Parts: sequence; structure tokens; C-alpha cells
Amino acid sequence: MNILIINCGSSSLKYQLLDMDTGTVIATGIIERIGEETGTITQKSYPAKWPDRKNTEDLPVPDHEAAMHLMAARLTGPQWGVIRSLAEIDALGHRVVQGGESFSSPVLIDEGVMETIRENIPLAPLHKSNLTGMEVAAQLFPGTPGVAVFDTEFHQTMPKKAFLYPIPMELYTDLRIRKYGFHGTSHKYVTRAAAEFLGKPVDGVNLITVHLGNGCSMAAVENGRCVDTTMGLTPLAGLMMGTRSGDIDPAILPFLAQNADMRLNDIDAMLNTRSGLMGVCGKSDMRDIHAARDAGDENAQLAFEMFAYRVRKTIGAYLAVLGRADAVVFTAGIGENDDAVRLAACEGLEGLGIAIDPAKNAERTPGIRAIHAEGGQVAVLVVPTNEELEIARATRDVVTG
Amino acid sequence: MNILIINCGSSSLKYQLLDMDTGTVIATGIIERIGEETGTITQKSYPAKWPDRKNTEDLPVPDHEAAMHLMAARLTGPQWGVIRSLAEIDALGHRVVQGGESFSSPVLIDEGVMETIRENIPLAPLHKSNLTGMEVAAQLFPGTPGVAVFDTEFHQTMPKKAFLYPIPMELYTDLRIRKYGFHGTSHKYVTRAAAEFLGKPVDGVNLITVHLGNGCSMAAVENGRCVDTTMGLTPLAGLMMGTRSGDIDPAILPFLAQNADMRLNDIDAMLNTRSGLMGVCGKSDMRDIHAARDAGDENAQLAFEMFAYRVRKTIGAYLAVLGRADAVVFTAGIGENDDAVRLAACEGLEGLGIAIDPAKNAERTPGIRAIHAEGGQVAVLVVPTNEELEIARATRDVVTG
Repeated sequence: MNILIINCGSSSLKYQLLDMDTGTVIATGIIERIGEETGTITQKSYPAKWPDRKNTEDLPVPDHEAAMHLMAARLTGPQWGVIRSLAEIDALGHRVVQGGESFSSPVLIDEGVMETIRENIPLAPLHKSNLTGMEVAAQLFPGTPGVAVFDTEFHQTMPKKAFLYPIPMELYTDLRIRKYGFHGTSHKYVTRAAAEFLGKPVDGVNLITVHLGNGCSMAAVENGRCVDTTMGLTPLAGLMMGTRSGDIDPAILPFLAQNADMRLNDIDAMLNTRSGLMGVCGKSDMRDIHAARDAGDENAQLAFEMFAYRVRKTIGAYLAVLGRADAVVFTAGIGENDDAVRLAACEGLEGLGIAIDPAKNAERTPGIRAIHAEGGQVAVLVVPTNEELEIARATRDVVTG
Repeated sequence: MNILIINCGSSSLKYQLLDMDTGTVIATGIIERIGEETGTITQKSYPAKWPDRKNTEDLPVPDHEAAMHLMAARLTGPQWGVIRSLAEIDALGHRVVQGGESFSSPVLIDEGVMETIRENIPLAPLHKSNLTGMEVAAQLFPGTPGVAVFDTEFHQTMPKKAFLYPIPMELYTDLRIRKYGFHGTSHKYVTRAAAEFLGKPVDGVNLITVHLGNGCSMAAVENGRCVDTTMGLTPLAGLMMGTRSGDIDPAILPFLAQNADMRLNDIDAMLNTRSGLMGVCGKSDMRDIHAARDAGDENAQLAFEMFAYRVRKTIGAYLAVLGRADAVVFTAGIGENDDAVRLAACEGLEGLGIAIDPAKNAERTPGIRAIHAEGGQVAVLVVPTNEELEIARATRDVVTG
């Protein structure tokens, strides 16, 4: 069974074709700078049909509809194709950022589902391309079932005390302002993988999952179900990120409007694109920050400390939420690869049962591994995430009933 | 030595006259609704010179200058006076909300100090009445030394990783946007009192101080020094409060501007005056909320749970910050008197060494007391705060050198 995963971002389209019978990836691709003068498509094939498995081409991609057609042509074309015809694709899995309160599990796409997703666009206006992807897929792949998998669905189990904001209640009832949380596919994937690794049933495991990539979020997972998470109405909230501030005193926005003569839209853009690590030290990539720290850059050191400090505080907060945790689970780009961040995030937590073994932490091996010190009450795990595989599994499960 | 404490709020003036030789309060007073058509002055005298120690009068009080004169007249007047002349007052202690980064300890007021306080007004524009109080005091009490005691000073020991926001660094260097924290006088007072009660030196005690009143804030205190606190650039940040939201996804502000057609000033006002407990259930006083819970009001129950949940998460976060805590210290109106909130805030924390003894918690006795269960690693204390006494002590210490 071949499943194509489609992930339409605000100006990009990522895709991945998987053979679910063998559990292998056939091809991955990304189309970037959609809507700009020149876009780029990059596709990689596994196993490589060519000496260089990666092929790149620059060409204008005016919109997401064009990007979908480009993807289809590239997957099947004579030069770089990996399948002969789109009919070889048995199902489509669409990543959808915002499911609102409408969806708490993956769902087979039909007109009604698309209408509900359309109603949720005001909650995530930058992601209406998710809907475009589905609309174009219906033309490109007539008769092929499509499944929508939502970034928010894993968090729909949060209790009201966690997901409501302390603001007038009608803002929830009328405008649906609440904490939704994102990265749910990743938190769900690593929850299942960590439970397996620990030899426990998913519904019997308490975890603190720590997704640290370009975006960063954490989840408190009780008996396999999310009970709290750091992102909110939008992916701006919670932890410090590459370019996003995370939580700040909300009064800073009116303060800036009054004292810096900034417009609210500019403030919003600044908090999303010029804050976080970037705001503190001018670099948003943790690898660059480590290099700058090594060179004695004080602001880079500060950005690193601030980043880890906020993760550490949230580990403590979620220990208080859960009462007892089986494991802290690090995942995504930074979480999987950055031993310095993991060490700093867990520093001084021995009294709470969390202690990292520096040697195990420093190893760089693929796959799931434990990095806690002997005798630590709470395991500390590194679990590579795989959102595409999670979406593919969910898609398969829905279409095979 | 008689010390008069002056606390000018945005539309009120609170004062307290203390005899520091005997450690007793001579009189307390509050002038409210300054600038409205009719204001009110209420003064209480200790010990009562009258059968009813409290006297109240309604009269217009156009501004804080008029309020200062009214206070002076009431303290010395023939009918309600408690002293014969203002010359019986040896020193003045002024509560100042915002000391910025300029002041990390109480300071004798002179022209230079007042100028520096003036420069900090943009950081707390509603509190320029603090400065008016000092200016009028210089005329009313010529030659009497005045001391400024800052709500922010206890928090000036926070490290950069705790007080900086993950936003562009020039907003700190140019506009001084950072976490200042407030309620410092209270956090400092209960820190010292708790250390004494525990039989430890102040500089050897790790505490989580929980100030729950109309405003709510917490502090992580390491070796007697504040290393983190929940309020921020302004007192809006952090915990859920009576009418203030505390931390929310900052993107909610632009979301409301776009989807609810609200202006930023209106959003700011809403987050300060119609959010928190009030926003969730229409009541801002926890006693009213308990009554409503008893009557089956679901939103009141929810407001209570949300309030306690946020305190609980911050206890966990600050345990992670401190590594090890000697005690959790509850203070201020709710913290001292509301056993249900304390119990809910510490619920499920046994695994972190925090457990309340329900019987001890339910007792209502004055003074400091321990309410933790036998064998709890972390003490849980109720410590009545006394900001006026803390200001009076600081004032005495400064003027007696």
C-alpha cells in the first residue's frame, strides 16, 4: 500500500511517498518559495535510482495548486519519477495544522470534512493552503481516498482547566479562543514509541514529551493522553523557539504600541519572526549558537541558557501536573541531536528524580535510547520523531477501516 | 520612633502610622476614589480612642495632593487625630511600585532619587502618584526624612536568563523591557519570617513564596535571594488573578484586534480588569466563588480549578529552578485564609515531597504556622504578610544608618 503524505505550509509543500507494506520511504520532496519569483523543488528517492538521489530544480511556482501539479509530475515524470502513474498511490494523508474542536482523530476527507476545516481557517489563517492541498488532490487523484491528520488532535484530551484562558468566557464560546496546542502528531508518535521502549502499555504511561525543533513545544501526557501542552491558540505560545518568543507578559504588546510606536501587526510579526533565539543573539539555529558560544559570544551563551531554562521550568511544571512521570522524552532536531541543550534542560533536577548520564547523553546513535543516570526515578529518553510515518499509519488505519 | 507609611495608588492613598519603638500600629487610613465626584476617607486608630475605632467621611478629593493634605489633617485634627502635630512623625516610608533597574534597596529620598523615579514612570504610568506623594510630603513634612521602598527591589537579584524576554535585545537595552516583578516587599517579608520560623539563616533558605491576594505572584527564592518571579514588565503577567489574566498566548491580542474588532487599549483593559477569576465566572472574590461553587455554579468551580492549577504548575516550575526547596510559603488574603485554594494548589505533589495535612490546613489561627503532613520533605507554611511593617523597618534602617 503506497501512501503519499502532503504537508502544505504557508509558502511550501512537503511530500513523502511511503510503501506501507515494507515500511519504507520511496521518495521525499519539498517545494519552497511558492508565490515568489522563483521557487525550488527538491526531491530525493530511496533507494536511489541515480548516483545522486537528490534532484533540485528552480522554477516559478505561483501557488499551491501549481505546487501540487508539480509534485505529481515529478513523482511520475520520465526523468525523476519513482512511480509510473498516480494510480499507484493508494491513499493520501494530509497534514492539517488546525482541527479546532471539531476533530479529535484522523478523518476520511469528504465535502463535509472540508467544509468544517474551512470554518476553522480563521483560527489559523496562514494555513489555508492545507485546504488547497485537499481541493487539488481531489482533481489530481480522483477516487483515491484522502485522510486529514490534525496537529491539534492529540491535545484534544486536555481538561478545561488546562485549555481555557483566564479571559472573558464569551471569547471561548463565541470566538473559540482556547489553547489548542500543535505538534500533536509528533507528541503522539514519541508517546507510543517511548511506551514501547519502556515496555509499558501506552495507556499506562506518564510522559513529559519535549519537541525541540524550529518550533518548540512540550506536552504532559497522563496514561497516554495529553493533559497539557505549551503552545496555545497559536504556535507562538509557550517555550522560547528559533524566532518565536513563546510566552511573554501580554502587556508588552500595548507597551510597544505606546512606547515604540509599533503597529500591532508589526509587533505580531516581530514576536513570530525576530524573537526567540534570533532576538537574543541574532542566530536562530542552535548549531550556529554553539559555535558562537565557543567563540565567546555572550549573547549566544545567554540565548542558550534562556532556552534551556524555559524547558527546565516546564519539566518541573509538568511533573507537578502529572504527579509522577515515567520519562522525559526529547525529540525533533534539537531534542534528538543537541546533548548540550538536553543536559542544561535537566540540570539540577536530581532532587526531582531526573538525572542525565553525560556519557550516554553525548553518544550520537540513531534510534531510541535512554540517557538517564543509573538509579534515576524518571527515565530520560531520546526518541527520533517521525511525523510522516505517524500520518501514514493514521491514513492507512482510516482507509482500511 | 514614629514612621508614617504612604502608599499612593492610581486612585487611592493608603497610609499607616507605626510606633517602631513598641512595634505597634497607631493608625491606618485609606482615601479612595481620588479624582471622582465624591471620595472617601476611612481611618482606624489603635488603640481605639473612641468606642468605634473606625471613622469614615465622604468628601471630594480632587487629586493626590489634596489626599496628602487630608491625611495630614486627619492624623492631627481635633476630632479624629492620633498625634498633636506632624512633627511627631520621625520618618516617612513611601511605597514605590516601579524602581526599574535603578534601585535594588530602599533609599533616602532626595532630588536625585526623585528624578530617577521620574525617569521610571514610563514603565508604570499608572503609578506616577507615587512621585506626587513624595513631592507633597516634602512640603508637608519639611526636614522629615523620607525613604523610598520599591515593589521591584527584592527581584533585582534575578539572573539574566530569568529576567530577559526572548524578544529583540534592543527592546531591553533601549526601552528597558524586561521582567521586573512586583509584590517584592511581601515576598521579602515572608522570606525572612519563614526563615526565622524554620530556624535557618535567611541566606541559607530556599523558598517558593506564593502571594495570593487581589494580585497574585510567586517567587523562587534561593539562599534568601529572588531568582525568578511570575509578574513581568507589568503586574499583568504570571498567575491568574482576581481580574487579571496572567500569562496567555501573546498572539491572542492581535487575534482579538482582527476577529473581535477590538482596539489594543480595550484589549489591555479587558486583560487587566475583566479577566482572571472575573472573566471565567463573573466573580473576582474567591469567597464569592466558593459560595457559588457550593451552589453548584460550574463556571465558579472551573475558575477555582484554573486558579489553583496555575499555582500548582508554578510550584513545580520553581522546584525545578531551585532544585531543592525548604518550604512553600502561602501569604496574602487568599494565601493566608483560603484552605481550599492551598489544598488544591498542592494536590498530587506528594511525589515531589509536598503534602498538606488537611486538619492543620483547615485551622484558622493567626500567626505563622506549618500545615504540611508529617514526613513531607518540603515544609508548607502559612505566613501572614505585612508590607507596611516591612516598609517601616526598611525606613527605620535607612534613616538610622
